[in-house]
Amino acid sequence: KTHTDCMTSRNIIKLPGFIDVHVHVREPGATYKEDFDTCTAAALAGGITMICAMPNTNPPLIDRTAYDYTSALARVSARCDYALYLGASSTNCETVSELAPQAAALKMYLNQTFTTLQLDDMSVWQRHLQNWPKKMPVCAHAEREKTGAVILMASLLDRPIHICHVARKEEILLIKAAKERGLKVTCEVCPHHLFLSTADIDRIGKGRAEVRPILCTPEDQAELWKNIDIIDIFATDHAPHSVEEKNSENPPPGFPGLETILPLLLNAVHEGRLTIEDIINKFHRNPRKIFNLPEQANTYVEVDMDYEWTIPSAMEFSKSKWTPFAGMQVCGAIHRVTLRGEIAYVEGQILVPPGFGQNVRDWPAPKKQIFT
Amino acid sequence: KTHTDCMTSRNIIKLPGFIDVHVHVREPGATYKEDFDTCTAAALAGGITMICAMPNTNPPLIDRTAYDYTSALARVSARCDYALYLGASSTNCETVSELAPQAAALKMYLNQTFTTLQLDDMSVWQRHLQNWPKKMPVCAHAEREKTGAVILMASLLDRPIHICHVARKEEILLIKAAKERGLKVTCEVCPHHLFLSTADIDRIGKGRAEVRPILCTPEDQAELWKNIDIIDIFATDHAPHSVEEKNSENPPPGFPGLETILPLLLNAVHEGRLTIEDIINKFHRNPRKIFNLPEQANTYVEVDMDYEWTIPSAMEFSKSKWTPFAGMQVCGAIHRVTLRGEIAYVEGQILVPPGFGQNVRDWPAPKKQIFT
Ligand SMILES: [Zn+2]
Ligand SMILES: [Zn+2]
Ligand SMILES: [Zn+2]
Ligand SMILES: [Zn+2]
Ligand SMILES: [Zn+2]
Ligand SMILES: [Zn+2]
Ligand SMILES: [Zn+2]
Ligand SMILES: [Zn+2]
Repeated sequence: KTHTDCMTSRNIIKLPGFIDVHVHVREPGATYKEDFDTCTAAALAGGITMICAMPNTNPPLIDRTAYDYTSALARVSARCDYALYLGASSTNCETVSELAPQAAALKMYLNQTFTTLQLDDMSVWQRHLQNWPKKMPVCAHAEREKTGAVILMASLLDRPIHICHVARKEEILLIKAAKERGLKVTCEVCPHHLFLSTADIDRIGKGRAEVRPILCTPEDQAELWKNIDIIDIFATDHAPHSVEEKNSENPPPGFPGLETILPLLLNAVHEGRLTIEDIINKFHRNPRKIFNLPEQANTYVEVDMDYEWTIPSAMEFSKSKWTPFAGMQVCGAIHRVTLRGEIAYVEGQILVPPGFGQNVRDWPAPKKQIFT
Repeated sequence: KTHTDCMTSRNIIKLPGFIDVHVHVREPGATYKEDFDTCTAAALAGGITMICAMPNTNPPLIDRTAYDYTSALARVSARCDYALYLGASSTNCETVSELAPQAAALKMYLNQTFTTLQLDDMSVWQRHLQNWPKKMPVCAHAEREKTGAVILMASLLDRPIHICHVARKEEILLIKAAKERGLKVTCEVCPHHLFLSTADIDRIGKGRAEVRPILCTPEDQAELWKNIDIIDIFATDHAPHSVEEKNSENPPPGFPGLETILPLLLNAVHEGRLTIEDIINKFHRNPRKIFNLPEQANTYVEVDMDYEWTIPSAMEFSKSKWTPFAGMQVCGAIHRVTLRGEIAYVEGQILVPPGFGQNVRDWPAPKKQIFT
């Protein structure tokens, strides 16, 4: 492939609205890092029309009070559609499942990360996996051997489990083996584990490069690509922090990602490493299926397949004014985003106001879900 | 029950020779801590006629050269029968299985412990579990979520796995759930996790109480007793260190245990917490079955069920001149041990010389194993 096409023609294609099942909105509790307004603007600018918001907020989203509070904040501020995760805590095993119908999914944090929700004791995992309805997803931040432990436990209870942000060879190979044996496990991979590795840490800077799971070796990265068919979902794990925090002595882990994921994936199509079908499957169809999310009517994203550009030092809409992908040259850009019949984004402009976004768990359930 | 019986009568019963599948002999490499001579003397004094020797020696027992070397040392020094573990390393995945017929089992260290053999990467576990013959046991030091990960991996490969020294509620409950679903998992528990807990650390001393897995909470301890039927094997994890080391600033983890396990178990019978059948099953029959160990002809242990005594500050034969059980009053003592027709131990005296012990993997395989 030559690059002449990128500079001369305009090859616009229409894709479905993308769904990011792993987003840290930071509201409530840390709105200086991000809030529903800026986060959903960044999503739309990135071709994402629906987000699932993670529960490690302050207060954490672990009970009805917190759900109602966060839900009210989202209702007035979100510009794209959304669903809210509930967090599994060591105290809500017996109660959180009542909120299942209103939740994106249950999130279990099994590793030390940017949260107060870490579950240390496998007996607590077990109770959560037992009590949460089998038809609703459970997602686990479960690195390395915790991947194995939580898959075993879900399988013993005969319930599905979704593994967040797979990053390592040992993790993807284990999930592959589990899938081959028919276990009900699904998984997601983030752009920073697909497109970055330890080889990029010097360029990014040691502190800024902090993320969980960490950036892994080029061997791990290659193994994700080798097993791309095992990966069900692409998700950002958009985890914004301020530049000051990322530059500090004790930088918190996390990268912004909403505005860069689709260009990076389109560039991989351009390079022949992915197909457009892969993107539609892993960033629209499978999120819908696995999380049982509704179709958004009249919703689509128009992308310019041949627009070549360099990722700047920071993207436009996230409050997190840096990106680990700065300086990378990509081919492919978001031209226009239509959400439920309204033009929500076009060429750098957000056209829908805060409050336009809806909680998709408030929508009436369709007679029969058809996944297209 | 009154205790008058203990002081007046002499109630001797005959039990099979006990088999301890988890013993750190410390030879080669640290014979100031223990060696084959002292270790097997301690075993016999404890009613144990066969030991499986762990491979975290120096050099570690991970290849043919080390096997031949350790085997030669054992041949001239051991007083009771034995088999030698092979250690799984990150470099011997493709070669160690050749030695399977000569080994007690393959040992995989999945946690940080007193060894250089820790396996960090699950892909390495996977290769070991794949390559080691399914009929020969694989044993794992796999605490907490590593218990789950290694059980999953073994189950995906459809091979049995033995979990060493289960210590926590979360571990035993997971194993219970796995057994209920028909997974091929077996497990062992050590006397120090059955009879000690964090409540004993002050008495033992913080440094001396260091052991892996650590002493757990009384709740964990109670859960082991509650699920005693799930436990396949009693084993000591005899891990001798010098008193100076245990008293030092940086005490190495591990307890001696060969001379105290049977009295503690007999005392539990006395207290009505175990039956003699439990002891025979978990300390003779199941070790034979799970590790495919031969019957020792004309081998038995005579115990005085009613002899009441207080465990002294150190036992007689181990070089490790202390015990975490010091001061505990127990009912039940080893009177005499007969090994392959010879009186090997009687009332405080070892009567068989170094070299009397045999490597049971050198014995010709019986036509058909009958487990009695
Ligand atoms: Zn190009
Ligand atoms: Zn995470
Ligand atoms: Zn996250
Ligand atoms: Zn669709
Ligand atoms: Zn008594
Ligand atoms: Zn161990
Ligand atoms: Zn051990
Ligand atoms: Zn027998």
